[in-house]
Amino acid sequence: MSNDKVQIFDTTLRDGEQVPGCKLDTDQKLIIAERLDLLGVDVIEAGFPVSSPGDFTSVHEIAKLVKHATVCGLTRAVENDINVAAEALKVAKKPRIHTGIGTSDSHIKFKFNSTQEAVIERAKRAVAHARNFVGDVEFYAEDAGRTDNAFLAKVCEEVIKSGATVLNIPDTTGYCLPEEYGEKIKYLKEHVAGIDKVTISCHCHNDLGLATANSIAGVINGARQIECTINGIGERAGNTALEEVVMILKQHPYLNLQTDIDTTLLYDTSMMVREKMGMMVQANKAIVGANAFAHSSGIHQDGVIKNRETYEIINPAEVGVTESAIVLTARSGRAALAYRAKKIGYELTKVQLDAAYGTFLKFADKQKEVIDDDIHRIMSQVNKISKIAIA
Amino acid sequence: MSNDKVQIFDTTLRDGEQVPGCKLDTDQKLIIAERLDLLGVDVIEAGFPVSSPGDFTSVHEIAKLVKHATVCGLTRAVENDINVAAEALKVAKKPRIHTGIGTSDSHIKFKFNSTQEAVIERAKRAVAHARNFVGDVEFYAEDAGRTDNAFLAKVCEEVIKSGATVLNIPDTTGYCLPEEYGEKIKYLKEHVAGIDKVTISCHCHNDLGLATANSIAGVINGARQIECTINGIGERAGNTALEEVVMILKQHPYLNLQTDIDTTLLYDTSMMVREKMGMMVQANKAIVGANAFAHSSGIHQDGVIKNRETYEIINPAEVGVTESAIVLTARSGRAALAYRAKKIGYELTKVQLDAAYGTFLKFADKQKEVIDDDIHRIMSQVNKISKIAIA
Repeated sequence: MSNDKVQIFDTTLRDGEQVPGCKLDTDQKLIIAERLDLLGVDVIEAGFPVSSPGDFTSVHEIAKLVKHATVCGLTRAVENDINVAAEALKVAKKPRIHTGIGTSDSHIKFKFNSTQEAVIERAKRAVAHARNFVGDVEFYAEDAGRTDNAFLAKVCEEVIKSGATVLNIPDTTGYCLPEEYGEKIKYLKEHVAGIDKVTISCHCHNDLGLATANSIAGVINGARQIECTINGIGERAGNTALEEVVMILKQHPYLNLQTDIDTTLLYDTSMMVREKMGMMVQANKAIVGANAFAHSSGIHQDGVIKNRETYEIINPAEVGVTESAIVLTARSGRAALAYRAKKIGYELTKVQLDAAYGTFLKFADKQKEVIDDDIHRIMSQVNKISKIAIA
Repeated sequence: MSNDKVQIFDTTLRDGEQVPGCKLDTDQKLIIAERLDLLGVDVIEAGFPVSSPGDFTSVHEIAKLVKHATVCGLTRAVENDINVAAEALKVAKKPRIHTGIGTSDSHIKFKFNSTQEAVIERAKRAVAHARNFVGDVEFYAEDAGRTDNAFLAKVCEEVIKSGATVLNIPDTTGYCLPEEYGEKIKYLKEHVAGIDKVTISCHCHNDLGLATANSIAGVINGARQIECTINGIGERAGNTALEEVVMILKQHPYLNLQTDIDTTLLYDTSMMVREKMGMMVQANKAIVGANAFAHSSGIHQDGVIKNRETYEIINPAEVGVTESAIVLTARSGRAALAYRAKKIGYELTKVQLDAAYGTFLKFADKQKEVIDDDIHRIMSQVNKISKIAIA
């Protein structure tokens, strides 16, 4: 069975950029857009053109620059939003307009003070209007995560009739459990006329730490696009992290799902986004955190030194990290000390290692990490250990 | 139907502390242990007593201090490890010894150069030896995530016979998908004689961003303990984040699962751990990140101002955050500007707001965030807006 392609829709420059403190100017956005194109994303959501003159310019310039990916602009289900987005995107090789409206009771009642029927009418009109400008129109059913499945199916069916090519099913508040989100996608696959002509898209938020798991549940149940951001940045607790879903699909080949991402660029792209946006990534972030491939406990270090696969499922080089660090702390064992000592020129006998390890533990109990300089100091305190020649 | 209790096993001071740079001294550990006890965790894993003299002392002092929680010490399936842990824990009100061994082919072959039969023998001996000291013995089947289910079931059955009270099923490499991990727990519930007398525990790592989802899949399928850390810290990409699993169970009451955590202490506890360990938490971290409750896009801000539940599923006060910030950027709409302006004393008419919004966008396109001082400047540039009295 050949693998099904899952499209990667990157919204770093739209949903990511709307984060407090993450605003970029047009030049910075162009650098990131060019990198995303190189990374191999299928769609770049470049901005929300009607929201400000600066954003319009950015979308327009990105549309001119990008060579391979589809360039997408966000709109509300408002005619003028769509007109402005179409204008910003008209130079794109592959333009997409992303329009939509809230479909949950909470959104219909409190945000729009409207009714289900009126919301469907607005949705249809917006999609049809966008189709006047471009052949590729994505519809988002905002707060789909909390929208009743039967009503959501009806909305989807109507916008497909109006010409939508992609259906975005956002878990806007990050509320769904993976099982629940997967079932929602499955329900749509089974109940919406015309669903096989369009692509279902997952757009999950991370308020409960489940965005990645929900997106994977979505594609297992029939979605074929994931909306995500580099480093998982985005409104509140962020969006699905691109690097996580891409590596999950790569590491689980039996799912028969693949992306076109060049994973060796993941780490560098992550660094570029954190620097440009000033949004730091925590050390314990999956795939791209500083510690993602670091081993510090004795048990783990011993295992990794014997055979990397004991504790490491991803070869760091696959995501562009050059080597997994063995960090020395008071939790490190003899094997780690011997390994690091050897790297800087000491080949220890078992007796020497025992002696050095006792001294090492005294050092390590006093400081967070034992570095190479400390190792030299430890060795000088232990009799008869001299440096060997380094090859 | 009354709710089932899920035990929260906190390993911030053991699996968390073995992270590069996170080492704490005994005094710092005591402060965190006291807070964890107040937070309402059921078990505190205090350390790995045999690993260093400093760690022995810490476990011993924590065992003396803690009033409510069980205090647990880690060991390998090695007699001396267990003797040392028992010594460190003997002053605890509720002591638990946590012992175990790798059960996957990879661990048995590369780490131990051993056989399945020999590994079962070591496991049984370790559990039985630990039961000589304490009534509560937890067994970990390291790398259970990659262990064949039939062999794992056999190991579990044997250690239950030897006296284990808790079975820890770690996804050591963070490899499993939620469905897969859930099925593993279900398989054990269905195939292990005596399983209903013991507690199954989830210990998931976050290498692919799935630790939280896997732990939830575990308890849905019959596990009743989750091993986790504050802020999700831990080896490599970390462990399951305590704050995430606790809030998921609280937000999904139909699962009929509950914990005893006082959620209003979550944010403060998160701050305490990041400060003591010097491990920063990214802004887009679920539940405890700086932006977890911040709204900056116009569409979202408008919704939140009309009705908080439009975009917020958790009341920030529930986790100890005092209010959700409305941050002003170029993506913010009129509603957000009006809201923030009102907070500092300007009640704007629609015409005034339109005028002020134009000026605001020019400010916002030039800088990442518009702060209160800027709002005063904007208002002074717009004719006839003067400050109202603040109540």
